Amino acid sequence: MRHILKEIKLFLFCATILLSTSVFSFSSGYDLWLKYDKISDVELLENYRKNLESVYLEDGGETLDIIRKELSMGLGGLLDETVGFKAFDTAENQLIVSKFGSLPEVFKSTVKMDALKKEGYIIKSIKQGGQSYVLVTANSDIGLLYGTFHLLRALQMHESLDGIDIKESPKVDVRMLNHWDNLDRTIERGYAGFSIWNWQTLPDYIDQRYIDYARANASIGINGTALTNVNANALILTPQYLEKVKALADVFRPYGIKVYLTARFSAPMEIGGLSTADPLDPKVIQWWKDKAKEIYKSIPDFGGFLVKANSEGQPGPQNYGRTHLDGANLLADAVAPYDGVVMWRAFVYSEHDAEDRAKQAYTEFVPDDGKYKENVLIQVKNGPIDFQPREPFHPLFGAMPNTPLMMEFQITKEYLGFATHLVYLPKLFEEVLQSDTYQKGKGSLVAKVVDGSLNNKKLTGMAGVANIGTDFNWTGHPFGQADWYGFGRLAWDPYMDSKEIADEWLRCTFGNEEEFLEPIKKMMMESREAVVNYMNPLGLHHIFDTGHHYGPGPWVGNLSRPEWNPVYYHKADEEGIGFDRTKTGSDALSQYAPELEKMYSDLDTCPEEYLLWFHHLPWDYKLKSGRTLWDGLGIKYQEGVDQVREMITTWDNMKPYVDNDTHHQVSMLLDIQLKEAKWWRDACMLYFQTFSKMDFPKEMETPENNLEYYKSLKFPYAPGIRPRWD
Amino acid sequence: MRHILKEIKLFLFCATILLSTSVFSFSSGYDLWLKYDKISDVELLENYRKNLESVYLEDGGETLDIIRKELSMGLGGLLDETVGFKAFDTAENQLIVSKFGSLPEVFKSTVKMDALKKEGYIIKSIKQGGQSYVLVTANSDIGLLYGTFHLLRALQMHESLDGIDIKESPKVDVRMLNHWDNLDRTIERGYAGFSIWNWQTLPDYIDQRYIDYARANASIGINGTALTNVNANALILTPQYLEKVKALADVFRPYGIKVYLTARFSAPMEIGGLSTADPLDPKVIQWWKDKAKEIYKSIPDFGGFLVKANSEGQPGPQNYGRTHLDGANLLADAVAPYDGVVMWRAFVYSEHDAEDRAKQAYTEFVPDDGKYKENVLIQVKNGPIDFQPREPFHPLFGAMPNTPLMMEFQITKEYLGFATHLVYLPKLFEEVLQSDTYQKGKGSLVAKVVDGSLNNKKLTGMAGVANIGTDFNWTGHPFGQADWYGFGRLAWDPYMDSKEIADEWLRCTFGNEEEFLEPIKKMMMESREAVVNYMNPLGLHHIFDTGHHYGPGPWVGNLSRPEWNPVYYHKADEEGIGFDRTKTGSDALSQYAPELEKMYSDLDTCPEEYLLWFHHLPWDYKLKSGRTLWDGLGIKYQEGVDQVREMITTWDNMKPYVDNDTHHQVSMLLDIQLKEAKWWRDACMLYFQTFSKMDFPKEMETPENNLEYYKSLKFPYAPGIRPRWD
Repeated sequence: MRHILKEIKLFLFCATILLSTSVFSFSSGYDLWLKYDKISDVELLENYRKNLESVYLEDGGETLDIIRKELSMGLGGLLDETVGFKAFDTAENQLIVSKFGSLPEVFKSTVKMDALKKEGYIIKSIKQGGQSYVLVTANSDIGLLYGTFHLLRALQMHESLDGIDIKESPKVDVRMLNHWDNLDRTIERGYAGFSIWNWQTLPDYIDQRYIDYARANASIGINGTALTNVNANALILTPQYLEKVKALADVFRPYGIKVYLTARFSAPMEIGGLSTADPLDPKVIQWWKDKAKEIYKSIPDFGGFLVKANSEGQPGPQNYGRTHLDGANLLADAVAPYDGVVMWRAFVYSEHDAEDRAKQAYTEFVPDDGKYKENVLIQVKNGPIDFQPREPFHPLFGAMPNTPLMMEFQITKEYLGFATHLVYLPKLFEEVLQSDTYQKGKGSLVAKVVDGSLNNKKLTGMAGVANIGTDFNWTGHPFGQADWYGFGRLAWDPYMDSKEIADEWLRCTFGNEEEFLEPIKKMMMESREAVVNYMNPLGLHHIFDTGHHYGPGPWVGNLSRPEWNPVYYHKADEEGIGFDRTKTGSDALSQYAPELEKMYSDLDTCPEEYLLWFHHLPWDYKLKSGRTLWDGLGIKYQEGVDQVREMITTWDNMKPYVDNDTHHQVSMLLDIQLKEAKWWRDACMLYFQTFSKMDFPKEMETPENNLEYYKSLKFPYAPGIRPRWD
Repeated sequence: MRHILKEIKLFLFCATILLSTSVFSFSSGYDLWLKYDKISDVELLENYRKNLESVYLEDGGETLDIIRKELSMGLGGLLDETVGFKAFDTAENQLIVSKFGSLPEVFKSTVKMDALKKEGYIIKSIKQGGQSYVLVTANSDIGLLYGTFHLLRALQMHESLDGIDIKESPKVDVRMLNHWDNLDRTIERGYAGFSIWNWQTLPDYIDQRYIDYARANASIGINGTALTNVNANALILTPQYLEKVKALADVFRPYGIKVYLTARFSAPMEIGGLSTADPLDPKVIQWWKDKAKEIYKSIPDFGGFLVKANSEGQPGPQNYGRTHLDGANLLADAVAPYDGVVMWRAFVYSEHDAEDRAKQAYTEFVPDDGKYKENVLIQVKNGPIDFQPREPFHPLFGAMPNTPLMMEFQITKEYLGFATHLVYLPKLFEEVLQSDTYQKGKGSLVAKVVDGSLNNKKLTGMAGVANIGTDFNWTGHPFGQADWYGFGRLAWDPYMDSKEIADEWLRCTFGNEEEFLEPIKKMMMESREAVVNYMNPLGLHHIFDTGHHYGPGPWVGNLSRPEWNPVYYHKADEEGIGFDRTKTGSDALSQYAPELEKMYSDLDTCPEEYLLWFHHLPWDYKLKSGRTLWDGLGIKYQEGVDQVREMITTWDNMKPYVDNDTHHQVSMLLDIQLKEAKWWRDACMLYFQTFSKMDFPKEMETPENNLEYYKSLKFPYAPGIRPRWD
């Protein structure tokens, strides 16, 4: 009988896959890493079923209802049977999900809650009176939700429940996404469709997508979202829009996600009817206080403001002869009564400042270290320029010991081939977080600045510029989901290993076949170096085409602002190529700790991946390989192209492990990536050749077109452009 | 045993619905009316299975592969069993799908192919040698595909196969969608997200959506699509974009769908480097000939050009002192060698012309009747103004007996509440098509102009401005799918009954429960009158807010162009309200047949639904009801609001018959519709009251806000605005 039942269930399972077409006629990727397909390993399945005969879930509010729903869906799918919810039962192997306070007494002595943060949780298997229980407990409802998602992930990853003993707390307080979404639903630097916020139909229409967005973020510990573009529109702060923001905040709240908004510094004039936005003007101060009061009245847990001021044309305190400090503290005072925070971006540079753009943020912010209100976070991009395929870490990290610095990563691929290139970003994030600032001696990792441990900060944060849009699969490229997932995991624990993260994501998204996992993990881990090689090898940076940043534009030199021109960054000439940032040049290196300044200044110790970032070198400079810089450049570009070819071969071999739709989708995208990798190689090498006057290295394939052709390419409607009102 | 098997299958079926969450976690509506859920009626199911034991499908190319796939999916889902494909078998009850030429001999005598058009098909049940066969035959592959979709629809609708005998040919040649999609993926008048054409990733990335778009259109007989906005961008005609267009054409071809493009009249200057676009200039003539040649080289079945010229700022022949005739014939000559057509829009009016806007198209085009090249279609909007909730038919219909006129309907709801209002448009389309032009005596229906029978035209067409976007369910509002579906059915047969169409769509989309079908059909059929009542009762028109046309703006009178101001259309003053289009007024009525002019001019015979369209009347004018015009107006607005309340009640009662997601979705949307119906009633009546100075009728609810409030509402980012480059 049991055998027949199994037969039927198997039959049923296959049929499901087949007939599920009636709900959605192709594998859309909508459900992300939250796939709860039946456990394929029969032995493990029986073990799970034996261990999870029923669930005791504490009663409670919305968040506990969400946990109930997630467990029904998760266990129902993974165990392929309905697991009942019931009272604590000493006669069954139960899953116990309950805050510590309301745990059945018998368990209270079995767990140590010390040092468990508000959002933390414990997952522990416990033998008790002949039964074995799996305990998920925490100090808060949201801790329970995080624990529930962790447990379900463990099942997705086929981990054993026997003796499971996990105690987790987030290492960073604010773990948030920054949406550069405009009110017309275009997304600046968005490549996965358009904004999922439908402002037209809010607040009355609640798109299922809002709910699933919150669910996905909660599953990886993200607890904040800034809904609007940092190139801000003051209208978002009007009652008409705040009513819409409130509707979203109400959806996100039970998932532990706070809403933040971008504050346009000139809002008091644009929507407040004031004649100035001077941060020291009493009327302006009062306007922001009143606005904060108005917001918190309808959104009591509003997170606070994210601000881009006096940067790339955005208004700011300097328009009134004031400083960033004045501006940040103005808004900080306004939200302080409600425990709100202000995230003030350090991404500032001016065309009127002749100083190396890479140095300007440091020069601007370091002098005011320690003077910011305690609810201010300075949000710093990972590198000193702008989300390039590779940058050294930003010199501000570790240089402001008395101010909370927040990391800003870019998950959306503005400078990494848009959503058509497979580039596994957690590898990049990890490289930055593991960088040593030496600011308090060896081991002063950027991760320690971010989690506050280096100068024990009370307030910490990490922001990721979202790669999410209206595309069915959220991120355009199926592997873009791994970047979203990985960002969340690293925001929770900045010390995580990016390969482990890839393993988690792959198992939850594609399954647990080792024959699939190993090669694909390898492909993902190498993909980041591939894009560096075919776009910006040896420390080159910002040589992208104008405005949209789609494809190469090293020849662009006609933009009004010098530091917007690629020629400003590569400085190629007859003599050589590269940006001298040593003492003989812009001296940007002096902004780093002496150990680093020394290492990067000295050509013998400067890692070649940063060579042209810090040095201007002759074309015939000898690389460690013994080849000339010129040859080395061509070889690197070629290597990038070859690495993409390898990725294609790897992926082709994975057909047996991936559904046809997704496999075909990724194949088409990899072909685009190869096409564009060649484009980068050919366009850049042909252009630089006009200075080097040298032949291409023999390792390099002959360009497919001439330089004029590549220069002639125009993409007026490339996605991700600036909002209409800018 | 059979019993147990049935049990298992039932179990399997339920489980499927349950577990299909693993593919898409909510009912997305993506599969439109092509739902192939198992036939619930057990008896009927057995009958179908008995009649369709196997399929004999003629071998062939891509289109036949599509038929095979559709039958596998369709029969597999509906019969919930795999139906095998095999050779013609005299020992089984088979489904025979084959062109007449390759039919098994025994069947050739059983069908009459006479008068069957290229796209037509026959479905016939035939007894032959003890077996019963269902025959689907045609003269072309596409005819077979249409027949296949018809057969599957018959099964979805639970129609009997016994004695089935269908012979269908389309009554209209060109049955096309017009996408007002811009190259940046915004959609002018689009309310279901953004353009499904991802120009950035074309031609290399073929989105599954392109394929499913073609499939959905083929299933309702649509055979053409104009990809780009009539407010055109010349870039679409550059090689860079034509390569992308070719990729789409290649996807659509096997589904019988031709691609058309909008031609910007100034393209020879913008992308051709010429100094003029004068239609009589030899260089311009040559440029268009060369461009056509270039297009047909890569897209041999390219449909042709759709043109908006000298209208709302678009360039055209009049910029060079030439006529629409000159412009249309210029392009017609260019595509003629390849059997391409030109659809030249009659939607023209000028701010420099003092004549009633409703009259200008007629004045412009009628004099040239008969002078257009034979591959020119004049595309005429259904009414003389602009897709209003109700308009009399356009006077051009029937007035150009020697020129093929093509109908242009708007499926997207620019003036009908966007995609949040439930308004069943086929009811509106039917009203227009059934209108009698009297141009050749009584019975000269608009439908007869459109199908060419009134003046036996060789070339006929119907276009619908698409309501399709990136939303999961394609159309934003789930019931918007019925408008797309209904347009396709009416383009195939302009004489179809809109209630029958609703019945088809509901059965294929929601199922066959009579308890559901009757009330919902009633709701759909009444929904169009509801929107007329709460927006534009008694012949009012074009009193929408500026630009975006979202919500009421009867007070708007400050626009540069007089005919863009609502006040131009309602002409409300102390004396009364309405646009006098009789002899004493603009005399627009003289453009209609004498019978109509007489009927509409005479207040005793003019239907009250057109009252204020044709007459300016005092506020105290007595309606047939005996009430004053003022009271009647308020009563109509109130009636519209009450009708929406009724719709809400009806829908609430349907919970048992609709999945939760869809039911909740529609409920939220109906609440928006009610809110906005009240908004319309209150804003319009408060505004008109400033002239009538009369109290609201007792039947009308008191407005919720004052006039100033309604006037103050601004919607700068309402969707569907003009493209960036305009």
